[in-house]
Amino acid sequence: MPVYSMTLTDTGYSLRSIVERFGGELVGDANTVVNQVAPLSAAQSWHISFLSNPKYRRQLRNCKAGAVIIGIAERDETDLPRILSDNPYAYFAKVSALLNPRQVEAPGIHSTAIIDHSATIPASATIGAFAFVGAGVKIGDHAVIGSGCHLGEGVEVVDDSLLYPQVVVYHGCVIGKRGILHSGVVIGADGFGIAMEQGRWIKVPQIGRVIIGDDVEIGANTTVDRGALDDTIIEDGVKLDNQIQVAHNVHIGAHTAMAGCVGIAGSARIGKHCTVGGGAVILGHLEIVDRVNISAGTLVTKSIAKAGTYTSVMPFSVHQDWLKNAAHLRHLDQMAEKLSVLETKISELERKKL
Amino acid sequence: MPVYSMTLTDTGYSLRSIVERFGGELVGDANTVVNQVAPLSAAQSWHISFLSNPKYRRQLRNCKAGAVIIGIAERDETDLPRILSDNPYAYFAKVSALLNPRQVEAPGIHSTAIIDHSATIPASATIGAFAFVGAGVKIGDHAVIGSGCHLGEGVEVVDDSLLYPQVVVYHGCVIGKRGILHSGVVIGADGFGIAMEQGRWIKVPQIGRVIIGDDVEIGANTTVDRGALDDTIIEDGVKLDNQIQVAHNVHIGAHTAMAGCVGIAGSARIGKHCTVGGGAVILGHLEIVDRVNISAGTLVTKSIAKAGTYTSVMPFSVHQDWLKNAAHLRHLDQMAEKLSVLETKISELERKKL
Amino acid sequence: MPVYSMTLTDTGYSLRSIVERFGGELVGDANTVVNQVAPLSAAQSWHISFLSNPKYRRQLRNCKAGAVIIGIAERDETDLPRILSDNPYAYFAKVSALLNPRQVEAPGIHSTAIIDHSATIPASATIGAFAFVGAGVKIGDHAVIGSGCHLGEGVEVVDDSLLYPQVVVYHGCVIGKRGILHSGVVIGADGFGIAMEQGRWIKVPQIGRVIIGDDVEIGANTTVDRGALDDTIIEDGVKLDNQIQVAHNVHIGAHTAMAGCVGIAGSARIGKHCTVGGGAVILGHLEIVDRVNISAGTLVTKSIAKAGTYTSVMPFSVHQDWLKNAAHLRHLDQMAEKLSVLETKISELERKKL
Repeated sequence: MPVYSMTLTDTGYSLRSIVERFGGELVGDANTVVNQVAPLSAAQSWHISFLSNPKYRRQLRNCKAGAVIIGIAERDETDLPRILSDNPYAYFAKVSALLNPRQVEAPGIHSTAIIDHSATIPASATIGAFAFVGAGVKIGDHAVIGSGCHLGEGVEVVDDSLLYPQVVVYHGCVIGKRGILHSGVVIGADGFGIAMEQGRWIKVPQIGRVIIGDDVEIGANTTVDRGALDDTIIEDGVKLDNQIQVAHNVHIGAHTAMAGCVGIAGSARIGKHCTVGGGAVILGHLEIVDRVNISAGTLVTKSIAKAGTYTSVMPFSVHQDWLKNAAHLRHLDQMAEKLSVLETKISELERKKL
Repeated sequence: MPVYSMTLTDTGYSLRSIVERFGGELVGDANTVVNQVAPLSAAQSWHISFLSNPKYRRQLRNCKAGAVIIGIAERDETDLPRILSDNPYAYFAKVSALLNPRQVEAPGIHSTAIIDHSATIPASATIGAFAFVGAGVKIGDHAVIGSGCHLGEGVEVVDDSLLYPQVVVYHGCVIGKRGILHSGVVIGADGFGIAMEQGRWIKVPQIGRVIIGDDVEIGANTTVDRGALDDTIIEDGVKLDNQIQVAHNVHIGAHTAMAGCVGIAGSARIGKHCTVGGGAVILGHLEIVDRVNISAGTLVTKSIAKAGTYTSVMPFSVHQDWLKNAAHLRHLDQMAEKLSVLETKISELERKKL
Repeated sequence: MPVYSMTLTDTGYSLRSIVERFGGELVGDANTVVNQVAPLSAAQSWHISFLSNPKYRRQLRNCKAGAVIIGIAERDETDLPRILSDNPYAYFAKVSALLNPRQVEAPGIHSTAIIDHSATIPASATIGAFAFVGAGVKIGDHAVIGSGCHLGEGVEVVDDSLLYPQVVVYHGCVIGKRGILHSGVVIGADGFGIAMEQGRWIKVPQIGRVIIGDDVEIGANTTVDRGALDDTIIEDGVKLDNQIQVAHNVHIGAHTAMAGCVGIAGSARIGKHCTVGGGAVILGHLEIVDRVNISAGTLVTKSIAKAGTYTSVMPFSVHQDWLKNAAHLRHLDQMAEKLSVLETKISELERKKL
């Protein structure tokens, strides 16, 4: 049975055993056993909770958890058994993964799956119902291909990857180790390559692939197009949320994370360790260096050569106020012109004054 | 046969029988029989049409429909047989539903569907071809699970719900009564929970569920992520258009409607009876009270504590004009500074004048 | 085997045979045989490359391709065997299509497909595994229906169309000749038609269809809703990228192209030969004439009656600069007011001066 919503798991762990695994300083009863994670406000005696944002300190004081993971600075903010860590959220992530391990699917190929005879599938892999595995596909050890997935010719899904139901991977694309692809993801559809000739669009064949590194997670209904000539590249450790569009020949550097609904146009090159906020759009053929943070809703129209945070957001306001202000947005140039005229006139008046 | 495009349906209704069902005042021949709905401009003698926007009054005058549904104020704007209503559009919706009832699928389980032995499926339900129904799933009376749908372990789909082909519902999620989920919808994929540790993202297990109330409709390719710890909640009567992203732990209040391409970031709490225009983005961890209207394309960056309409839209213009104005957007601060300097200088000039 | 990533194809073509097919002026050895396309920077002796943007002239000089396709103006910029064309990119598209023809699937119906007895499927068509073909469906010659596709009752897919795996077409919709629909596309889901009555939304039945012309390509996970009463229309030659939402009763004119993540609201009417940049949103019930270009990220809130380029983009900047400028955006009206006061005062000062 999958575990969800803070119900009891099958196995508990003592705080001692947790600290032995993940480090940190233990304060209080080391024999306290916790069995599931929960937020501060809802935790019961069998839960372990966490505080990473000092804003929620008040919740810590009223917390009924069996134990908590907190920062060094919060050491004396509670009497609960506690683990002190300099990164309580990451520590919590590890404890939650310990308490909620991925359900191990029984290996094997479902009787309804269609597998090309030339595909390579190890005994440790799982292929779900109605999955289609094309010619020359290579599946890695312990990989799980969910029900209804489609793997085109020559696709490679490396060890320990998990494809949820109804993922489509077009021919020739590669998913690295420990990848997680959620339902509705489409990898390797044709990029938007069209040439105009006499009022009609001619399709440009898209002969590149999509190459996805290790430890990449891709959210539901996100699409990553194959390259036009070269490959589209997603490096190790990249995390993409839902409903993102990655166009052909984009290159996303390692450990970059993007929130939902982002759009990346063709041949954009994005650095390592970047973050892109929800709904942002990055135009094509531009380059963004490492460690750039793009705010939610921002449209990036030029290359960014320097690490930092970049924003282009129109602040929202009550509609009536917006109406008044927006009218001027179409006339900023005139406003600047008027200002300049006034400056000249005043200089003149001041001069005459002398 | 499904009915579409204003073709004849199998059954007509007299205006008398319509008014008996739905109320309203009938003017003209009560025996007039109508058989399908149509817009004012295209209606024929067997159609019933409607006018809800006075802007289209002129079309009413030339209308060839067998009958029309209009507001009280339009009573004398036509000689056609007519039903007067104080809400002609809602009245029309009911008449259209009467004339175009949902096709009743023959109940039963398609021979190709894979059903876990522990799933509960009443005789009145329909399960389509290539559907996958996991362990412990509970299907309600008269529910329809379209071809190729995937219902994970422990999913509940309550009475009279309709899942179009290729909907995925991850384990443990609940769809209320009379729900309609269109193709490509993904309910309950993992939320975007990642913790940064030494330059690498660690996945935070997502152990909450998605709980969807009664009478909720969700458009094609919309995604609703499961909660991180608590559940993601969509209350009764919510209507979501296509391609919307609802992140983990979002709470959407009853009878709120959202147009296409909206993105709602994690833990946002949206009130009841709100509307959100197409392409709007609502950031995470903020609260929007009841009866708030967000304009299309607006980015909501802060909580909204008061009912009303809110907007953040950059007005569009001819590109050349935009270029001129946009240049100043990056220098508004300087413009304000210049203005302030001028104000000081003028005060001085005026003072000297005295 | 599909061909990808600039690997050798099965067949080479001499430049002579290429020019015989597609025209253009040949300079250099007509017997040069090329076998695949590649970008200037990566091309080897068996590749043919192209230059359409003079910005990349330098790459032309160092290019190691067997041949290149270039503009007339670049005639003397290289010694490589070359084809001169006044539209090198379109010429290249044709050469690439010659070298990378669409893989011909063996015609026939996969044994796992479910086909209604009343469907019409010619011997030249291909129906993939787990496909569902409903009552009265008509498939054209040489059409390919990918694995897991769902075609509802009465759907028509005309000659030579290609549906990639897991496309859903709701009942009654029509896909024209040579259409290409990528995975995850949903055609004909219900439009977002809801009427408000006493705080509750009533569904308005969507009885129109989607009619798609010839030579239309639709990208992965794009959705096109069926009409409410009339049909949603996509004319010949339209190209839609991924993750686009086309609402009910939209009309898109011939040869219009839209980049990823665009949203088009209900009943918008868009002309022929338009382009719409990524992430743009077009509101409902408005009309855009032929040959309009909408910039990426632009929100179109009014009809556009004149051909040209239109933009509404907030320029992005370093976050700290943006903060300073954005504050003034909420106070433009006051700024304009101050400016006007200053103008009056200065006029007065100037008058007194006289």
